[in-house]
Order: sequence, then structure tokens, then C-alpha cells
Amino acid sequence: MLKGVEVAKHNSAKDCWVIVHGRAYDVTEFLPEHPGGQKIILKYAGKDATEEFEPIHPPDTLDKYLDRSKHLGAVDMATVARAKEADAASPDEQARQRRIAEMPLLEQCYNLLDFEAVARRVMKKTAWAYYSSAADDEITMRENHAAFHRIWFRPRILVDVANVDFSTTMLGTKVAMPFYVTATALGKLGHPEGEVVLTRAAAKHNVIQMIPTLASCSFDEIVDAATDHQVQWLQLYVNKDRAITERIVRHAERRGCKGLFITVDAPQLGRREKDMRSKFTDPGSSVQATAGHATDGSQGAARAISSFIDPGLSWADIPWFRSITAMPIVLKGVQRVEDVLKAVDAGVQGVVLSNHGGRQLDFARSAVEVLAETMPVLRARGLQDKIEVYVDGGVRRATDILKALCLGARGVGIGRPFLYAMSAYGLAGVDRAMQLLRDEMEMNMRLIGATTVADLGPDLLDVRSLGSHATTPADALAYAVYDPLVNPPQRPAEAVLPSAKAKL
Amino acid sequence: MLKGVEVAKHNSAKDCWVIVHGRAYDVTEFLPEHPGGQKIILKYAGKDATEEFEPIHPPDTLDKYLDRSKHLGAVDMATVARAKEADAASPDEQARQRRIAEMPLLEQCYNLLDFEAVARRVMKKTAWAYYSSAADDEITMRENHAAFHRIWFRPRILVDVANVDFSTTMLGTKVAMPFYVTATALGKLGHPEGEVVLTRAAAKHNVIQMIPTLASCSFDEIVDAATDHQVQWLQLYVNKDRAITERIVRHAERRGCKGLFITVDAPQLGRREKDMRSKFTDPGSSVQATAGHATDGSQGAARAISSFIDPGLSWADIPWFRSITAMPIVLKGVQRVEDVLKAVDAGVQGVVLSNHGGRQLDFARSAVEVLAETMPVLRARGLQDKIEVYVDGGVRRATDILKALCLGARGVGIGRPFLYAMSAYGLAGVDRAMQLLRDEMEMNMRLIGATTVADLGPDLLDVRSLGSHATTPADALAYAVYDPLVNPPQRPAEAVLPSAKAKL
Amino acid sequence: MLKGVEVAKHNSAKDCWVIVHGRAYDVTEFLPEHPGGQKIILKYAGKDATEEFEPIHPPDTLDKYLDRSKHLGAVDMATVARAKEADAASPDEQARQRRIAEMPLLEQCYNLLDFEAVARRVMKKTAWAYYSSAADDEITMRENHAAFHRIWFRPRILVDVANVDFSTTMLGTKVAMPFYVTATALGKLGHPEGEVVLTRAAAKHNVIQMIPTLASCSFDEIVDAATDHQVQWLQLYVNKDRAITERIVRHAERRGCKGLFITVDAPQLGRREKDMRSKFTDPGSSVQATAGHATDGSQGAARAISSFIDPGLSWADIPWFRSITAMPIVLKGVQRVEDVLKAVDAGVQGVVLSNHGGRQLDFARSAVEVLAETMPVLRARGLQDKIEVYVDGGVRRATDILKALCLGARGVGIGRPFLYAMSAYGLAGVDRAMQLLRDEMEMNMRLIGATTVADLGPDLLDVRSLGSHATTPADALAYAVYDPLVNPPQRPAEAVLPSAKAKL
Amino acid sequence: MLKGVEVAKHNSAKDCWVIVHGRAYDVTEFLPEHPGGQKIILKYAGKDATEEFEPIHPPDTLDKYLDRSKHLGAVDMATVARAKEADAASPDEQARQRRIAEMPLLEQCYNLLDFEAVARRVMKKTAWAYYSSAADDEITMRENHAAFHRIWFRPRILVDVANVDFSTTMLGTKVAMPFYVTATALGKLGHPEGEVVLTRAAAKHNVIQMIPTLASCSFDEIVDAATDHQVQWLQLYVNKDRAITERIVRHAERRGCKGLFITVDAPQLGRREKDMRSKFTDPGSSVQATAGHATDGSQGAARAISSFIDPGLSWADIPWFRSITAMPIVLKGVQRVEDVLKAVDAGVQGVVLSNHGGRQLDFARSAVEVLAETMPVLRARGLQDKIEVYVDGGVRRATDILKALCLGARGVGIGRPFLYAMSAYGLAGVDRAMQLLRDEMEMNMRLIGATTVADLGPDLLDVRSLGSHATTPADALAYAVYDPLVNPPQRPAEAVLPSAKAKL
Repeated sequence: MLKGVEVAKHNSAKDCWVIVHGRAYDVTEFLPEHPGGQKIILKYAGKDATEEFEPIHPPDTLDKYLDRSKHLGAVDMATVARAKEADAASPDEQARQRRIAEMPLLEQCYNLLDFEAVARRVMKKTAWAYYSSAADDEITMRENHAAFHRIWFRPRILVDVANVDFSTTMLGTKVAMPFYVTATALGKLGHPEGEVVLTRAAAKHNVIQMIPTLASCSFDEIVDAATDHQVQWLQLYVNKDRAITERIVRHAERRGCKGLFITVDAPQLGRREKDMRSKFTDPGSSVQATAGHATDGSQGAARAISSFIDPGLSWADIPWFRSITAMPIVLKGVQRVEDVLKAVDAGVQGVVLSNHGGRQLDFARSAVEVLAETMPVLRARGLQDKIEVYVDGGVRRATDILKALCLGARGVGIGRPFLYAMSAYGLAGVDRAMQLLRDEMEMNMRLIGATTVADLGPDLLDVRSLGSHATTPADALAYAVYDPLVNPPQRPAEAVLPSAKAKL
Repeated sequence: MLKGVEVAKHNSAKDCWVIVHGRAYDVTEFLPEHPGGQKIILKYAGKDATEEFEPIHPPDTLDKYLDRSKHLGAVDMATVARAKEADAASPDEQARQRRIAEMPLLEQCYNLLDFEAVARRVMKKTAWAYYSSAADDEITMRENHAAFHRIWFRPRILVDVANVDFSTTMLGTKVAMPFYVTATALGKLGHPEGEVVLTRAAAKHNVIQMIPTLASCSFDEIVDAATDHQVQWLQLYVNKDRAITERIVRHAERRGCKGLFITVDAPQLGRREKDMRSKFTDPGSSVQATAGHATDGSQGAARAISSFIDPGLSWADIPWFRSITAMPIVLKGVQRVEDVLKAVDAGVQGVVLSNHGGRQLDFARSAVEVLAETMPVLRARGLQDKIEVYVDGGVRRATDILKALCLGARGVGIGRPFLYAMSAYGLAGVDRAMQLLRDEMEMNMRLIGATTVADLGPDLLDVRSLGSHATTPADALAYAVYDPLVNPPQRPAEAVLPSAKAKL
Repeated sequence: MLKGVEVAKHNSAKDCWVIVHGRAYDVTEFLPEHPGGQKIILKYAGKDATEEFEPIHPPDTLDKYLDRSKHLGAVDMATVARAKEADAASPDEQARQRRIAEMPLLEQCYNLLDFEAVARRVMKKTAWAYYSSAADDEITMRENHAAFHRIWFRPRILVDVANVDFSTTMLGTKVAMPFYVTATALGKLGHPEGEVVLTRAAAKHNVIQMIPTLASCSFDEIVDAATDHQVQWLQLYVNKDRAITERIVRHAERRGCKGLFITVDAPQLGRREKDMRSKFTDPGSSVQATAGHATDGSQGAARAISSFIDPGLSWADIPWFRSITAMPIVLKGVQRVEDVLKAVDAGVQGVVLSNHGGRQLDFARSAVEVLAETMPVLRARGLQDKIEVYVDGGVRRATDILKALCLGARGVGIGRPFLYAMSAYGLAGVDRAMQLLRDEMEMNMRLIGATTVADLGPDLLDVRSLGSHATTPADALAYAVYDPLVNPPQRPAEAVLPSAKAKL
Repeated sequence: MLKGVEVAKHNSAKDCWVIVHGRAYDVTEFLPEHPGGQKIILKYAGKDATEEFEPIHPPDTLDKYLDRSKHLGAVDMATVARAKEADAASPDEQARQRRIAEMPLLEQCYNLLDFEAVARRVMKKTAWAYYSSAADDEITMRENHAAFHRIWFRPRILVDVANVDFSTTMLGTKVAMPFYVTATALGKLGHPEGEVVLTRAAAKHNVIQMIPTLASCSFDEIVDAATDHQVQWLQLYVNKDRAITERIVRHAERRGCKGLFITVDAPQLGRREKDMRSKFTDPGSSVQATAGHATDGSQGAARAISSFIDPGLSWADIPWFRSITAMPIVLKGVQRVEDVLKAVDAGVQGVVLSNHGGRQLDFARSAVEVLAETMPVLRARGLQDKIEVYVDGGVRRATDILKALCLGARGVGIGRPFLYAMSAYGLAGVDRAMQLLRDEMEMNMRLIGATTVADLGPDLLDVRSLGSHATTPADALAYAVYDPLVNPPQRPAEAVLPSAKAKL
């Protein structure tokens, strides 16, 4: 068994060992290939990297990507210096522990927004930064939710709503509620068990979970966590190496996935500055060495995990996907009606109107606005039943779901809110979040005067202001750069008193 | 006479006695039927529940709903421990008492908004929460008032306005001012005498009071408080048991009510999270026991009082109402022009465009916006005189009333402002609130160039922006979740001083 | 000579003497006739009322309105107790004196807004309240200025602007700049010399002054303060007693006034709540006595001075005005294009589009918005030269003036800004304010590419957003009534620590 | 060699010597001609003026404008009292030095906004005031950036974006990125080396620099700093003396400039009140002497440097420019489509839609809004290739650049952001700023689905809200003048306690 001191000797770019989960690995040759850059690995050269490694990599990562010959075997962890002790005692971490000790009871969370507010207080700063960050000035992220607030209801009265039923069908699967758990990366940043927590909650409430390519758990762990008849979909980042992609897709179909959601809005993963800022560590004396390098590896979790994604993916690839799977294919990240029409022509079964939670292109429009642009065109061409249209981004309330369905969406994807519920309260949190949505759905179906989702139509909405972007979103200029307009200040009394007195 | 210690023994779900107004009742069998849930009763098992019972239940409740055999007779109250003593000495309550001691004089209230601001300071927290709360993110509640602010005047000049007369007629009754006191529940939360305070003020100013189904006073108390010729209407929640409803309606007609206002926007009473939060009590060590139960009974006053309401009420029921009463029938809570046209077809005498003060469906539009949608359609079809159209929600100023009348409303309902005036200053408060409205009405009729309500028409308004919802209403995300956008922070001076110095 | 003690005996409603400017008056019989109500006089019964009397009444008031027999002659002021001593030593007044001692130098004021900010700091609270207050929620007052901010320029380039000339002609008078000093009441509240300060500044800059009916100086004082060729206009509140009105008009014409501006937007003077609040004095032990009286006399300066105004004034009166004067007649306070057309028909020479500085009807539209509605209609009917159209309200910058002129106004009236400049810095302040406007005019004429006012036309503007009122103006509800939306609060650590710990 | 004491004797308007860069000059006769006014020179009469002189005047200024006979030769600087010592020790300056010591590392700046925030903290107050100030209420300055925020993207998906190329051609020059460094005055206020820093950064990133007429460096210094093939343009303020202008233009062409950008939006340089306020110095006892003079010389840097600009410049001058140079001519500061059409007719090669960074006419529209007005008209007339259209103002993000290019701009000018990067971090700062823009460009080209600038077209945008100015920009009135709306305040407990108690 290896000793800590032995591992610690291999602590440079030319000879780099790291410890993960009690085993040592020689990653010297792998360094240049690491999608997240060398820098982050070198930080742990000769040390235990488990805590950093864990949430970002599925457990089978090292087996898959590092040659067996580099697996050096078990380390006697008692002999390894625990570098992170200091962290636990840091003032920031102590304050966080206090906030955790004082966090509200789960029953005090009355809506999905509550979970976000609690999670913000109790999550680790870097984890919160990764989940909550978005592109550039985060304008699209906020717009995603705000757009729902420009849609108003025209409810029907005196409808018998003693019984309301908001179950529906998605890609042929009957679901209890018209939403699904959309794919989000790195679930272990928020909860030690990762995505399987969402699997269990989805099972309990009979909604579909979309499994992310970039999960912290391995794909099989997530599928294994499902119940017998539970339906899951696969979200796919397309690899530059199509063989890998094919392997992933075929495996997913074999394991029973019922839908293939190909992400099309992320040829390159977005720059999320909050995430980058949260990762920044003062280089100390080596300031000059790195100055000017804008593209070093420490650009936050998003950049670290994305270098394999193929920016060359195009419409020409769709038939190939058709050829390798019988799963329904859905394009995730469509952002204009022209591309929805192309999707129909391409013969896919569905589209998700989405801007990736505002994490890719800032000033992309909200999915719900694109939906309002799309459905009338589909209906005018008689295509509304040729393709299932989903939306995600900004959904927090049952009223948001109802708005999307009235406009013509088959269902909505919900991501961050469940992540936050999981991060703050674990499975019980996600369970309650879904239960609250169910309560809100029942209430609001009644109040809008609809007994089934078939009753939901555009006449129940007033969307005249949806396309209005007259309110200018603010960015940091407003807060940190523009001087406030001022009037002349008072003058020190001593200086002016005599003349002022004379004047009065 | 029962002793306190004796009653105190019956303190469990299996054997539950409570004291109300000095008399003991055995409610063990009634527990599962209690509309507000068992939990709230069990909190007072074996104790005096009067303070909690009082504002939520009309005095005849126990006689009506609890079998005589369960009425256990008088209790010697000197022998009952006074649990509430502690409350009076709580820091919150002491602070409230100080605010009461320092509250402004009634003459310092110059408009209806002032009463709300004072009431917020001096009311009990739970009472304020019940009155002021609304659905979800309270967006419709705020929109109700805000919508009036998107309507501007086009006043006429050089009209002889020496004499202005703003009396009008509602359902055949001549009234001094074009508003009525609309129905609001649980008046005793705000004032120990409850709704009769509003009755007296309405009498003094010759306006109509609508009596709520869920009043704290009994229906008869409120009718008895009226003067000989004072006109009252009945607001009706329709019971699942139509026999009860019929009894209520026939009784009201017999007692002289001149209008039946059937609430149609509340098949289920809304979730009002502020109200729910104000009711939350820490379960202490029993945390695990209740976790996950989203639908327990402690969901605020609104849920506690509503379980009897029939969600199956529909257009098909209208003829039956016609058959049991000669009172004019008005549908309260209509929210789109299509349903106003249906109401005309159904032969009712009127509609109240209303969203229940924003307490039911969030993102329902304001009544005044629906009014602007409705009247041109009615006029185009020659139906404007077939039905009386009322609005309520958000009215605070005479200018609001004038805007509604210019658009074509027969009158407006005002609820919360009078509740707040009553809660803060009692009858004198409501009296002054009405007097202030009268003063404002006279002034603004003159300034707009109208001498009678017949002079009020749409040409006096600019409503081009009424339908614009371009400003996104904010919710708690903005305040508690979204991180502010930041620029890089300063760095501790010690760390960088040498290199910084070198640079300078 | 009367002694103070003697006067002091007459200190009741039945026997009421007051001292003004060192002379005693018996006002017992006059009490019920006082336009400002009895209460304010009784406050000074038996005392020196000069300080309160001075700014609200022209010096000839007592001679005009109180019978000679009630003039009791000089008082030995050394024997009169000086009640106001306390005031000077009040903490509020001391703080104000400190602010005066530290006020900015005049040269530090770079625009008209600066004067307002300084005046707010150094004026007496009641004077500031009277000048700055407006109707109801002051929404129209703020809109007056805001409306200019919805108009943008489309400037011309490469125009030879070496020489720019912004002189123009108003009612036949050549003026140096396209604005006039509009009528504002009670100038002595801001400056001991009152309106004559404005007269002198107007003379220096060759602009017209409009003399207010409710000036603190007498009409003749203001005319006497003018230079030989200085042009003044008369603003007229029409008295219920037309003989008084006729006397005023004929006298003004005789004294050389060149225009008669009849106020048509004030059949009753507005309720200005800030003004009313500033006047409120705690009645102390007599609380109960006055409770409920909404219309007592202490409703601020506005109500005190207006009871003589005739609310019966109408279009039918215009010919009579025509018959008593040869001065051009202008209707001040027109607020819709229909009434501008009526004014043309009535044969008057001009209109001032105005809402009385937002002091009358709240939610009246801004003058500049009404102007944009009016001029196209006038042009379409070929009436644009039949009548001169002025606007006032909200003008603070030369760009505001240019916008109004581009839209078709002959000139703009400016009121409050000059009052504030006068209140803060006296004549030098008004002089500099006008000089700053001149500097801005020259600069901005050049930048817009216009060399004379004839070059100013609608093609230099983008007014598409002028009519948009999508941003809801806020009132006190937002600040003092609506609760912020909250998420669940943290819980005291002691209570939850054990279970929370267990959970982690 | 002159001694300090000797120079010090010549310290009045009648006999005025100053020291600059260790040499003395007799400026007595020059005083009335100084474009910046006499006052600022007299402040340094008999003293060393280098620090004030340096950033505002190119080094050849004295040689060019002051007759040789007035050059008095070298001064023994050891004998000159150092007046500025005090400054360095001032609390303001000490605080600034602390902020500099703690400023963020360059690598912590992740976008162009970050540089502005840092520069604001570390620049000298007067320098910041000059760079950041704008006309009047700075509404156009903020609108310039805000307008981009009313434009949203309609990105294309499934485009092969493995390779993206955002190089383009400007006036025939191939550039690496579609922006240029636009002309800004007084570079040495921000950095001791001035504009040559920008030259070097532009060379590194292969973008064009526009050389300002009012540079701190001399024209030749800036050209000399360029690399062999680096392209520069000349920005020209046209002098009243056309001979000077001709000399400048011919010299620039000879030195290799590839474009002549004639500023047409500044017949007179704007009033920038922040700049003026920052220059204000308390005149102390001489208050009365200067009161009322609105146009003294101390009106900030802008006014000091502009008096030579010809306000008579007009379209008639264009042919003359054509006759003196072969450089492409571009009109900088065009603000409406009509003038773009005139520019086509005048045969110039390009226009820059610009409002001078908001520093001239407040309420001028943003360049990007004018661009959206212009291009459809050009296309409708088939003129889109007859003239190159540039925009500047408010560009901070690659998304802003992309929006302008989609609308039809050939390129965008960026000014302040590079000044701020230079002021905070020197050349490394500008370098990183350009690198960040490059990173953003690559990312966002991919995300929008465009591989070359030719792919960028209006269908990629949603500009429906661009022309909407419904949100009223606020000015100082809102902050310093308008009183908040209030409700009645609480009353002191002592006064009301008894009666309040009685009431309760």
C-alpha cells in the first residue's frame, strides 16, 4: 500500500500523481488531454484530489479514460496530509455551517422560489456559483422567468372543476404532471448522492427524468436508481468522436431510455463569469507569469467539462442519429420558428425551445416567447401535431406551466428549482417541491376554469406584452460605473459662514 | 359549573373538549369534519379557544353545526389557566402596543392609503396577514391598483361645475356615491365589533353594503345593525349542499336584501402564502413527523374557512338560483368579455368584474382592464343597458372611481381600504374614509369637467397604455435569489502591496 | 399707541384682534368670511400675525377687505410678546440655518435642477411644501417633467450654426428667449421681496412675466417694478363676483398688461396633501372635538386662498371678457385637443396647454403630450396660425424648450424653477437661472442644427414613445403598505441545532 | 539658468510667466487667446504648471503656438517650490493610493465592464470626470449602452461552427475584428504615455486606431508608435482657420493615414456638468466678484480645448475636403437617415452614426437605433454598398458588436472601455480587453450560428423594442428634489398616550 509521502514526491507537471477515492493515479501523460485544463490537476499534484474530483466526474471516469497501467493502487490514507482541514475552519465555511444550523424547516417552504433562497444560503459558494451562474450579464437567465410575468390570464368562470386532471402524454409516455426533470450537470455539487435523488423523486410523482451527459453519477447508476416502469430520457452532448456518441446512444436505448434529446444550443459551453470569479485563486507571487492569458484552464466548472463537445454538429448529422437509434429524437435548444420548421422537415419527434437556462448566449429570447412565435406558424401550416414542442427555462410556478401549455407546449422542463430543493433538503426537498407544484396545478387549473390539459388554449391568455422588451435590463455599469447625478454639495460651514451670514 | 381542571383532562384527539365564550363543548366527533382541519382545534384541546374562535366564526356557529348533546355548559372561567397572558407580554406585542400608543390622529389621514399604512403598523400580525395577503407572488393584487395608474385623464374645461352630483342608481337603489362596501371575510380580525361597523358607516353615507358569507358577525346581526331604509346585498359562496344555500338565500331575501352576488371566481379558495407563513408554528422536536405533508390544516385563515365551497358550480346552476329568489342576481368574479356575454344570455342582472382582490389566481388581469375590454363589445352589440357592470379591486382614490365610471362601470366595490380604516380607527375611521372619498369625488368631478355621472364617458380618458404589461413584476427571485452582478473586488492590501508598489 | 397687553385681551372668536405690521385690527366680524377659515386667524387672536399674514396677502389686503372702522391703529411693538422666538430656536430651524450657512455658492449651480435641490434644503418647510406640493399622489407633477424624457432628438448635422438666434414673438411681443415666467402664487413664501424679484430678472433677460392673481406683492407693486418697455401679462382667477373681475382686468389693461391669461383648469383649487400635512398642528387634548371633520380650514395654503374662485365659469363667459378688454385673451389650462378647437371657435388669441403644474387633477396628462395630440389636428384643419399655443409644466432644460417648439409651441412657461432660484439665491439666482437657460439654448440650437426658431419642426424629434404610459407610477402603497415578498426566514440556532446536526 | 524666485515675480495678468517641463515661458500676451481661458493659466502664474499642462497639450504645443521670443529657457527646478506636495498627502489622494494598492489583478477582469469599475476606483477624480462625463443629465450616454439591451437574438442552431472567422474589411483595410479604437481626447489624463498605448494594443490585435485631433500625444508621436503595416485613421475637428485644417489633413495623408473622419456632431463642445463640477474651486473671499458669471473659463476640460472648432462647418465644405486629400472621407456623428442619404449624395465613403459618446446633445438617440432606421432605407434605395456605415457609443460586449453587424454596420468604434483599461492597467489592460472581446466574439459567433460576418443579418435579431423609450430616464429631480410620498407619521408617545390608552 502506497504511503502519502511517496505520492507527494510526484508533484510537478513532469511527474504528476494524484489520489482519488483512496487510490493513486499517474496522470503525467494525461495532463495535456484533460478537458478542464492542466492547471486544476496540478493544484493537486502529489495530493488527495477527491473532494474536487468527485462532483465533476462520474465514478467510472478514471476507468474509462485513464489507461490501466497508470492506476497505481490503494493509498494508506492515514498517511496522507489532510489539506482541506483548514477549509472547514475558514470563517466563510463556519458562517455557512451556522446558516445550515438555522435553515428553515422544510414545511416552511411554500413554493419553488423558497428552495432557491434557502439553497443560496446553505450551498457551498462554488457549487452555488456553478448552478446559478449564466452567460455574460445574466440577462437571458432573468428574462426566462420574467417573460412568464408578461403573460396574463383570461380565466373562464362557472366551469365545473370538481375534478381536474392535469396528466398528459410525452413522447408516448403517460405522466402525472405536465413537466419533466430536465438535464442539469454535476448534481453532486449540490448533494453527495447526485442525480439519483432526482430519479427517486421523479418516480414518486410519476414524471420523467432526463439524464444529463454531464451527470456526477454515471449513466448506469441513474438508470439503476429508477423503478421498473419509470421512464427516463437521455440528454446528449455530441462528442467530436462520433463513435463515443454512438456507444452512448445505443447503450441508453438498450437500458430503456425512451427519448434522445440532442443539445443543439451549445457548440461551445458558455462563459459564465460568476462561475469563473468563484474559481479565481490569487496566484500570489506568480502574478506576472499568468498576466494576459485570458484562456487558461481555471474558467469555472463549465469550461472544465466541455472541451469534447463538437462545434461542427449540423443538420446534416440528423439522419445519422436516426440510423443508430429507434428512440424518438428531440432537438434541445431550438430558438426560432424557422428552425422548428426545419426540425419538422428533418423528421424529428420534438423540439425543446430553450436557451440552456440563460447559460449560453446572453440576449437569447425566452423559450416561452419563442413558443408564442412558433405555435401560430405551426398551426397555420397544419403542423402542430407533427412535432411535440417543449420549453424550459424560468419555470417556477404552476401558472408558468399553465401559460406554456395554453400557448401549445406539450410540457415544460424544470431544472434548477429541483437542484436547489435537493441541495437544501435532499430527496424530501425535491419531493415537497413536486408536491407543491401538484397543489398549485390543481388550484390553478380550477381557477382558470380548465379540467384537463385539453381545455388549455391561447384564448385563456393575454400575451400582448410578451414580445415587449421596453424595460432595459441593467448590468454592472449601472451599479458600479455610472456616477449618480448630483446637485451641488453643501460647503464646510467655517469657510462660508461670514459671507453667508452677511447675505442673510 | 365545570372547573378548568376537568375540561383540561379532555385534551387529545380521542377525547377533545374546548371552551368558547365561557362554555365547554365536546368536539371529539366533530374533529374530522372541521373545515379548518383538526390541527388547529387540537392546539386548544382542553383549553379556552375563544380568542382564536371568535373572529373566524359567527356567534351562531356552534348552535348551528354542533349537536346540542355536545354542549357541555358553563365553565367557571376563574378556574381556567389563561394561556394567552404570555402573548400580551411578548416583545412583538409590546412593540405593537407602542405603535398603537403613537399612532397618528385620525385627522392626519388624508386619503385611503393612509389608513392602510396605519393599519399595517397597528394590526395584529396574523390579522394583517389575512387581510393583506394575496395569491402566489401577489402580482395581481398589486396590478389591481397599478392598472388604474395606466389610465390618464382628458379633462374638459370651461364647464359650469358649480354644482356636481355624483349620486347614481345600483340595481334600482339610489345611492349617494358610486361605490359600495364589498364583501370581505372575518371582520372581527380587525375590529372586535366586526362587520356591523361597516353597516353603520354605509348607512351614514348612504351607500350599499354587501354582506359576506364568511362574516365574523352573523348575517342577522349585520341586517339588524342597518337602519330602516338602508340597502344591503348578499354575497354568496355556494355550498356543496344546495339545501344550505337555498336556506341562506331565502332568508336573505326575507330579511330585505336587494341583491344576490354569487361568487364565481373561487371554486377553491386561493393559496395565500403570507397568510400561511404567518400561521406557521415551529413543531419543535416533532420535525420529522410532519415533514413532507404539504396539505396539513395550518394553511392560514383562507383555507380554514373554505372547504364547504362547491367547485362544481357552473352555468347550469343559474336557472335554479333564478327559481329560488326574486332578488336581482349578479355574478361576482367575471374575468373576460366572453363570460360577460354568457351572463347576459343567462339573464342575470349584473356582473362584478373582479379577481377577488388578487387572492385567487395570480396573473389574473385587473378588473378595470377587463372592463375596458368588455364595454366596447357590449356597446357594439347594443347590450350595454341589459346588464349592470361593476368592478372591484385596487380602488383607492376618487380618480380610480371616475376612471371606472368613464369606462362604463355602474359602480365600484371597495373592500380592504374600509377594513383597514375600521381596524385602525373603528367607525370613525370608516366614516372619515368615506368622507374623504366624497371630498375627492366632488373635487375631481369638477376638475374633469363633469357635473353628473351621466357626463362621464370614455372620451375623458386616455387608455392606450392600459393593456400594456411591459414592466415585469418582480417576485422574490429578484430579492433573495439573483446575485447582484459584480465587478472584481479589491484585494487585501498586505498581499499585493509590494507588487502594486513596484508597478506604480 | 396700543400696548401688547391690551391687544392680548381680545383673544377669542367673540372678540378677536390681531396685529399685522405693527397695527392692530378687529377681525371679529370678519372671521366667518375669511377665505382661509377662522381657525388660522384664531391661532393669532390677541397676537402678532405678521409673519403668517405676510406671504399670503398682498399689502393692500386689509385696506381692501376690512372696513376702516376695524383698523385700530399702531401698536407699541416693544410691548408685544414675541411668540416666534421659540421657533427660531427649534431644532428644525437651527438645522435649516446650518444648511443655509453651508449652502453651495451660486456659481456651483450649473442647471435649473440644482436650484431646486438647494431650495429644498434651505427653504422653510411650509414654504417648500406649498411650492413643491401637487395633487393626490403627485403623479401628474412628476409626469410633466418625465414626458419630456420620452421625446428624443433627430438632429441635423453640417448646418452652419455660427450664429444662432432663439428670439421669438409672443402675442406680438418680441422676446429674447422662447419662454416666459409663468404665474405662481405667494412669492413671499420664498423670498421677502416676492414677485418683484422675478420682474427684475425678466427685465434683464427680456422675457415676459405673467403676473399672478394670488401674488404676495400687490399687482401695482409688480407693475411698478417693471422697466419702461418691459411686457407683462395678467393671470386671472375669475371671481364669483364679476364686478371684481372686471375691475381687475380693466386696471391691468390700463397699467399696460399685454395679455389676459384666464385660468380654466381650477374651478376649485386642488387638494395638495403634502401642503396639508405640513400645516397640521396637533390639537392636543381637543382630539375628540375635531375628529371626523374633513373640511376644516387648516388644509394648507392652497385651500386658504381659493374660496373666491368661480366654479361656474364656462365657455359662455368668453364673449363677456372680450367685451371688457382689448388685451389678447389666452385660456390657461386647456387639456385636450377638442377644447383647443373650441378655443379657436371662441376667438381667443391663444391657449396654454397646462395642468397647473400637476396641482389640480392627478393623472391629467402632461402639456407636451397634449401638444403632440393638438398640433397635427390644427395643421390638418389649417388652424395652426389662428391661435398661439403655449405649454407649461416640467420644463427644466433648454432641450425641453426645444422639444416643445419643435412640436409647434410658440413658447413655454416656467414657474417653479425660478421660484426656487429666487428662494435660494434671490435676484442673482433667477438671473443665473435665466443665463444658464440662455447658454443651454445656444448650445443645443447648434447641436440640433437649427439657427432660428423657424428651423424647429417635428422632423427633429422622435416622439413615438411620448404617449406610452406603460411604466406604472408608484404611490405610497408601494412604500408603506405592500409587504415585501419573503422566503422562509432562518430559525434560531438553539432551537434547531440538535435536529439539524442530526440531519447533516 | 532661471531661478524659481525670479519666475515667481511674474505672477499677474499683466506679467505672467509659467514653467512647463523645466522651461519658463512668458504668456502675458497669449493670455486672452488661450482656448481654455485666462483663469486656469493665472492659477499658475509664476509657478510650475507642468502637471496641469501635460495631459491637455501635445508636447509640440508651445513650439507651435507661442512665439520663440517668449521661450525664456531652462529653469533650475531645484529652486522651484513644489506646490503639489500637499496634494499627494491629501486624504482623497491617500484613499486613492490605497485603492490602487488593493486593486484587482488584471486576470480578475473578465469583461470590459470590469475595467470601467476598476478605473473608477483608481483614476484621479478630475481625469475620471473628464472621461466619464456626458451632456446634461447623461441620459444619452446611458441610452447608448441601454439601446443594445433592447435588441434580442434569434440564433440559428445546427450550423457547423467549428471554424469561425470574424475578420472584415474597413475602408479597404483587412482587420482581425470588426471594431476599431475610436478617437478620444486627452489620453494622458489616464496614463502617462497617452494614446501610444492604444496604438501598440491595436497593432497587436490587428485593429485600426483612429487618431484624435485632441490627443495628449502629438500626431507624429502616435504615428511613430505604429508598426510598419499598421493602419491608422485621422479624426478631425475642423478649425475656423481652414489653412490649419489643410495642413493637418495633408500631413496625415503624407504620414500614411488611411481615412479622414470629420467630426460633424460638435459645432460646439458640450456642457458636461460633472466635468465642470470636478473643476470647481472655491473662490473663497472673492465670492461676490465672480457671482453671476456663467461663462468663466473653469468649465472643465471639454470647454478648455474647444474654442477653435468651427461652428460654421456645413455640407458646402465637403467638396473642399475632397480637393485636399485622397483619403477616404467619413462623416463622424451622423444622427438621422436623411443625413446619411445626403452623405451618399455628397460622395463620401462612409458615415459614423454617433452622438459623440453622449457628450454633446442629451436626448440624441443611440447610434444603434439610428442604424436600425438607416439600413432599411439604404437597402430600399439600393445604396447599402455605396457607403460604409459605422456606429459607436455604448459598445461593451461582443454581443453588442454582433447586433450592430447584424443590422448592417461595417464595424463599431470603441472608445471609453479601452481608455479605462489603459488607465487602470496600461498596455496589458488594453491588450486583455481586446483579447476578451476576441474570446467573446468567437463564442458568440458560434452561439448565434454564424461562421463569418457575411452570415450576420437582420433575421438574427428581434428589434421590435429597440425604438421603444417608454421607460422614463431619471434625472437628479428624482433623487434630490421630489419628496417621497408619505403617510402620517407616528406621534410622540408622551403626548398621546393618555387619550390613546383611553381609546384602547
